[in-house]
Amino acid sequence: MLGEFENTIRLALAEDIGPGDLTTWAVVPPGTPARARILTKEAGVIAGLPVAAAVFAILDDHVRFTPQVSDGAKASKGDTLVLVEGPAEALLSGERVALNFLRHLSGIATRTAGFVDAVSGFRARIVDTRKTTPGLRALEKYAVRIGGGHNHRFALYDGVLIKENHIRVAGGIGPAITLARARVPHTLKIEVEVTSRRELDEALEAGADIILLDNMSPGEMRQAVETVKGRCLLEASGGINEETVVAVAETGVDLISVGALTHSVRALDISMDIETL
Amino acid sequence: MLGEFENTIRLALAEDIGPGDLTTWAVVPPGTPARARILTKEAGVIAGLPVAAAVFAILDDHVRFTPQVSDGAKASKGDTLVLVEGPAEALLSGERVALNFLRHLSGIATRTAGFVDAVSGFRARIVDTRKTTPGLRALEKYAVRIGGGHNHRFALYDGVLIKENHIRVAGGIGPAITLARARVPHTLKIEVEVTSRRELDEALEAGADIILLDNMSPGEMRQAVETVKGRCLLEASGGINEETVVAVAETGVDLISVGALTHSVRALDISMDIETL
Amino acid sequence: MLGEFENTIRLALAEDIGPGDLTTWAVVPPGTPARARILTKEAGVIAGLPVAAAVFAILDDHVRFTPQVSDGAKASKGDTLVLVEGPAEALLSGERVALNFLRHLSGIATRTAGFVDAVSGFRARIVDTRKTTPGLRALEKYAVRIGGGHNHRFALYDGVLIKENHIRVAGGIGPAITLARARVPHTLKIEVEVTSRRELDEALEAGADIILLDNMSPGEMRQAVETVKGRCLLEASGGINEETVVAVAETGVDLISVGALTHSVRALDISMDIETL
Amino acid sequence: MLGEFENTIRLALAEDIGPGDLTTWAVVPPGTPARARILTKEAGVIAGLPVAAAVFAILDDHVRFTPQVSDGAKASKGDTLVLVEGPAEALLSGERVALNFLRHLSGIATRTAGFVDAVSGFRARIVDTRKTTPGLRALEKYAVRIGGGHNHRFALYDGVLIKENHIRVAGGIGPAITLARARVPHTLKIEVEVTSRRELDEALEAGADIILLDNMSPGEMRQAVETVKGRCLLEASGGINEETVVAVAETGVDLISVGALTHSVRALDISMDIETL
Amino acid sequence: MLGEFENTIRLALAEDIGPGDLTTWAVVPPGTPARARILTKEAGVIAGLPVAAAVFAILDDHVRFTPQVSDGAKASKGDTLVLVEGPAEALLSGERVALNFLRHLSGIATRTAGFVDAVSGFRARIVDTRKTTPGLRALEKYAVRIGGGHNHRFALYDGVLIKENHIRVAGGIGPAITLARARVPHTLKIEVEVTSRRELDEALEAGADIILLDNMSPGEMRQAVETVKGRCLLEASGGINEETVVAVAETGVDLISVGALTHSVRALDISMDIETL
Amino acid sequence: MLGEFENTIRLALAEDIGPGDLTTWAVVPPGTPARARILTKEAGVIAGLPVAAAVFAILDDHVRFTPQVSDGAKASKGDTLVLVEGPAEALLSGERVALNFLRHLSGIATRTAGFVDAVSGFRARIVDTRKTTPGLRALEKYAVRIGGGHNHRFALYDGVLIKENHIRVAGGIGPAITLARARVPHTLKIEVEVTSRRELDEALEAGADIILLDNMSPGEMRQAVETVKGRCLLEASGGINEETVVAVAETGVDLISVGALTHSVRALDISMDIETL
Repeated sequence: MLGEFENTIRLALAEDIGPGDLTTWAVVPPGTPARARILTKEAGVIAGLPVAAAVFAILDDHVRFTPQVSDGAKASKGDTLVLVEGPAEALLSGERVALNFLRHLSGIATRTAGFVDAVSGFRARIVDTRKTTPGLRALEKYAVRIGGGHNHRFALYDGVLIKENHIRVAGGIGPAITLARARVPHTLKIEVEVTSRRELDEALEAGADIILLDNMSPGEMRQAVETVKGRCLLEASGGINEETVVAVAETGVDLISVGALTHSVRALDISMDIETL
Repeated sequence: MLGEFENTIRLALAEDIGPGDLTTWAVVPPGTPARARILTKEAGVIAGLPVAAAVFAILDDHVRFTPQVSDGAKASKGDTLVLVEGPAEALLSGERVALNFLRHLSGIATRTAGFVDAVSGFRARIVDTRKTTPGLRALEKYAVRIGGGHNHRFALYDGVLIKENHIRVAGGIGPAITLARARVPHTLKIEVEVTSRRELDEALEAGADIILLDNMSPGEMRQAVETVKGRCLLEASGGINEETVVAVAETGVDLISVGALTHSVRALDISMDIETL
Repeated sequence: MLGEFENTIRLALAEDIGPGDLTTWAVVPPGTPARARILTKEAGVIAGLPVAAAVFAILDDHVRFTPQVSDGAKASKGDTLVLVEGPAEALLSGERVALNFLRHLSGIATRTAGFVDAVSGFRARIVDTRKTTPGLRALEKYAVRIGGGHNHRFALYDGVLIKENHIRVAGGIGPAITLARARVPHTLKIEVEVTSRRELDEALEAGADIILLDNMSPGEMRQAVETVKGRCLLEASGGINEETVVAVAETGVDLISVGALTHSVRALDISMDIETL
Repeated sequence: MLGEFENTIRLALAEDIGPGDLTTWAVVPPGTPARARILTKEAGVIAGLPVAAAVFAILDDHVRFTPQVSDGAKASKGDTLVLVEGPAEALLSGERVALNFLRHLSGIATRTAGFVDAVSGFRARIVDTRKTTPGLRALEKYAVRIGGGHNHRFALYDGVLIKENHIRVAGGIGPAITLARARVPHTLKIEVEVTSRRELDEALEAGADIILLDNMSPGEMRQAVETVKGRCLLEASGGINEETVVAVAETGVDLISVGALTHSVRALDISMDIETL
Repeated sequence: MLGEFENTIRLALAEDIGPGDLTTWAVVPPGTPARARILTKEAGVIAGLPVAAAVFAILDDHVRFTPQVSDGAKASKGDTLVLVEGPAEALLSGERVALNFLRHLSGIATRTAGFVDAVSGFRARIVDTRKTTPGLRALEKYAVRIGGGHNHRFALYDGVLIKENHIRVAGGIGPAITLARARVPHTLKIEVEVTSRRELDEALEAGADIILLDNMSPGEMRQAVETVKGRCLLEASGGINEETVVAVAETGVDLISVGALTHSVRALDISMDIETL
Repeated sequence: MLGEFENTIRLALAEDIGPGDLTTWAVVPPGTPARARILTKEAGVIAGLPVAAAVFAILDDHVRFTPQVSDGAKASKGDTLVLVEGPAEALLSGERVALNFLRHLSGIATRTAGFVDAVSGFRARIVDTRKTTPGLRALEKYAVRIGGGHNHRFALYDGVLIKENHIRVAGGIGPAITLARARVPHTLKIEVEVTSRRELDEALEAGADIILLDNMSPGEMRQAVETVKGRCLLEASGGINEETVVAVAETGVDLISVGALTHSVRALDISMDIETL
């Protein structure tokens, strides 16, 4: 959780401030003491407070950043999330970057929590995908966890997911699984994507550890659950949204992966009010 | 369009591939020739094709990336956007990163185009804000332009926007404008945010080049337009969406800034089909 | 003013120290306490003290750096600028880099102050150009401000200056200004370079916000001032030096840009005396 | 000569172009063919042509950069140095950075050549110092060589120069030299700074390989040369300029180090004329 | 396999060449054509040829690097591995870095092959550990694969290995496995380290996917194999060397991890002969 | 000794931890206090304690790292080297990287000390070479010094060593030395490699400062010592190991360079025991 986040934050600050915040430099006397309140203008699950704290800490170590809630808090409209005190120029120059992170990550956590709540009581985990915003994967996957979801593999290097294209090249599901088993670290499970009953049987027989049911109907999923009988994990995937997720969970699958958690994020409406002292 | 984008793309590739794409390495024989089609599954304005091209070019310079349309094209559901040919491992390893960029940027261009079309015939430009995804500002502002919108200042260093907080510290709108005029490069206009008729008059008198009308009703905006009579530019801002934008444009303001263009993006549904030869 | 400077300083330290300061390592016992005095051997305007402070802070956070004057001070020959105390190895290893920055920036501030004093009483601002030392632009433009000058645009991305070459491609001054107005952010003024009375009229008519008078004689400049009558800003440019600047200022132009402020810098003679305790 | 220069050039381009050259983007149609001539407006020794070439090569590999002279050429006023052909936007966006390098380095080479010519016929080498512009040391030392000068040590890590401060800590010249000899790589000579006849004797006796005569008069230097009789190298240093260098060379010293070669550079007046085709 | 290796190679070149190869610069006329032969002076398994190729390609793209064997080849003493042709300065400046990589990686591949050959016929895979040289993990793990070994997890982020210390904090093997199962991605197996029969039973019962037998005797390992009966994978670990590996393999374990493959490498004696043409 | 090491350590941490230590995150409650002991399981010379300290300091500044010995200590089997206290997650996540450095560097120091002890009483220095692990040169050369050895030149940029290949291109030893003397900084000695008596004479006559005797027998070396009679330094090189080094030292050479100090390192067996409080 260390350096990677710091780099991302420093890039964001460089992007927004670059050679300097002209307005603040021109108008605000250096060292003017100020205090601010970060508050949410709509209800949601908060994620990213440590990131916002780091934004101000990087800008000026005289800023005191005092969270009133923790990541994962279910905040109501109007709730104060953080009190910030320090030099006005640091508060003004860091405001936008801090909010951009906080609003984006809270948007993800909030949407994730909606899915998680919807399937509460079912065995299925809500998991994310690799459909993340370029450069923000670690933070977005963190926000999914904060929202109560689970992470799928992080990237191409820490998991094996044999998709249709791989299968075609390898000459079938069986051969593909055999090749993967022979070459990848023994610490990784082998997951394979299937689109039909026939492929499911083939994957099962070849010893897949996880089978991804691609764009299947709830009926087909239920049948898959019955066929597999716990011999491997079953993951449902493909355009699942808030309307359809319960029907999917009811089929008894182990995992439901939802790309929209991270590829189509609505920022949570969070803002910051600054006043001088 | 040069180095900055390349760095962003390299970071995204490092994020997803890291020490290696395990599945492809294990299952796909090196050098297997393949070809792919990138197509859109819904209508929209396409943005990011050069970025997707760069993703594959960085991975393997044997990939041929042949766009069938250009950025800015209004594509229909099912349209082929690009043909890609090259080693299967490059196509498989680059697919997700290329799509993540293309879907995100096309989502922005599509939404921007919606706003731009809505106000066509009015004098107002649709402009973006600094509410962008950390690390992607240059690309997102590019996508706004592709969608027919215009860019506001890029960051804190290339424009002056005196907000409420600055005003309070400086002791009023007049003094703040005077300070800014005295210190910032003569190449920049001075923009100031106002929330009332009284502040508008003050800003006008102090010689503001641009006045941002913060969260005003269409009635107040119209009054502002009449008051100002072209002596400076007027920018409408604050929670404007597809439903309200026409009413805002009808007031005669010069600019309408819309944070949601970049802070709440729905990815356009674009995918890639790979086949071996 | 943050990260960018730190990177520049770290690069300079890496350049000079690299894998280690051999002489100090071989000859100076670690931790030997020492103190030093940074003094100027000639009169001038001091700039860069925070940079020198950062050099030592990066090397060893046990160094106490106590400035006796502030940036902008007009120092006389022999004045002590800073007292430094700390481990001898840090003082010895950082001396050259700290002085290289301080001497270079003070050289710029001193020369700028000469120009600024010469035109005091006239309306013209002395402004810098993009003729800066590669890698040091932010620091050099800071030194210009410390010397009482003003900054022109920082770079190609935060200002519009249509030069002769652009005009030729665009098919004339009018079309070029129209294109720029249509495409660039509304927050930027449009500046255009002219070399004759005819071009001046064209620029004025096309609504240029700023007109740069390229290599004109004082007589031509005066005529331009009279023609324009305050309808836009006028900037004088082209080989202006200490001998000619007053004649230029007398013409009534708003801005005088001087490349030599940064492209031909004579370092101010500042040195450091170290003694052990 | 490889990567280091490329990084320096890329930093300079990022500094000047950042997220984009607004004027060129707005006014110049992409791909407009253009050609340019880089010429010098005053006589001097040219240095930095490969750097200027790299600037354009990095921006756009369609630019053809055809030098008409080589680094080290003694050019006369008006001489064409380079023909450049390629897309107008690359020529316009790269012009300033290319010239900033070329003018600065040619300024150094020209001044160095002046010193070298002045002492031609004497045994003394003109050498540079560590008083270089932060971030540009490698390039500036290259320009010194192009001007006919020689390099002193590059930095603190590749040479030993025991100065007054080191001597004081080590308890004398003899002990300092002994310590250095015992610890530093055998591949390096030991140089020591002396300020008096007595110190010279001490350094000689302790076996110094090089003795730096700090701020001595020509008379003292001549005496030192006679004393040393070739048993070690003698370097003259301290405020030597074009007026005094011959008198120093006449003393018979082996080396004359001149800080002003790099700390007080007057840019050579080189410019670029672009035209479209 | 892309960017990461390039960065490592560029760092190594910067480390060795820095501001320039003085000897080659001083003595070798630029562009002197040369050719060289890379040959091994002892028998071994070759690994790292693409890395050596990249070293020269980065230095000068005129170098032709023609491997005579491929990575994985079992070379005999005196075998020519590569012919290299190009400018003498590139061959001379790149020689050491290319050989440092090639010798180190071939040393690893050779030692790995020794272990792999020793256990050929047994079910056990030889796997590496995280006891790698800092900065070279990806390359060293590549060399292990070239030598016929398999990779364990790459790092802390792509595998779960619950060690004694984790167990103590979590309050036992069972709770630790339960926690891990609940939180980590479903794509990863859970591995746990045990030191006794009792712990083995506990791990088995808690559903460990892999059990690491830490420093057990062959007798204990055999008993573990019998107890487990294929219900999970068994990995032998702890000071296993060429003398003891067969006895370990005979126990029937699935995996044998050997830290010495990468933490104690003897370079293979490979050298390069250069001649000018 | 500053930044360079920090970068190396940060790269190593990024390599091992990347987006996160999954096992520790899943199993260890944040902030659990823990303490650990780093101890050596075999006798040796310890090197790298400041590096290990920095590993933990970078991870979490709440870790207290208390060395019980200093770099250079000759430790016995079972000796405690360091006590570490702090959050369990920092200790667990940093353990491997800290040990990888410490074991590798102590391995080098231990082997170096063996050579140094063997030749104690002789005039010869044991020196290292450029046959180092890519990326770790500065640290490895530091470990050589800790083991009592001396450093040869650091890299290609801080020393001149004319090898057979250079000689051939330059047309002989004499011309090569003359070229080098004429071009390289006067602060560097000129070293030349010879393989025969005839070449030795040539080098001596041309004024070489150091002559490297390549792969000569002790008899030849002795003869060289007698021939040279102290007029320059003599360095023995070529496959010298613990068995042959004394015979080499007895010849009276000044320097013995040993590539195996750094190219074939056996890690010292150091480990870390963690317990919670």
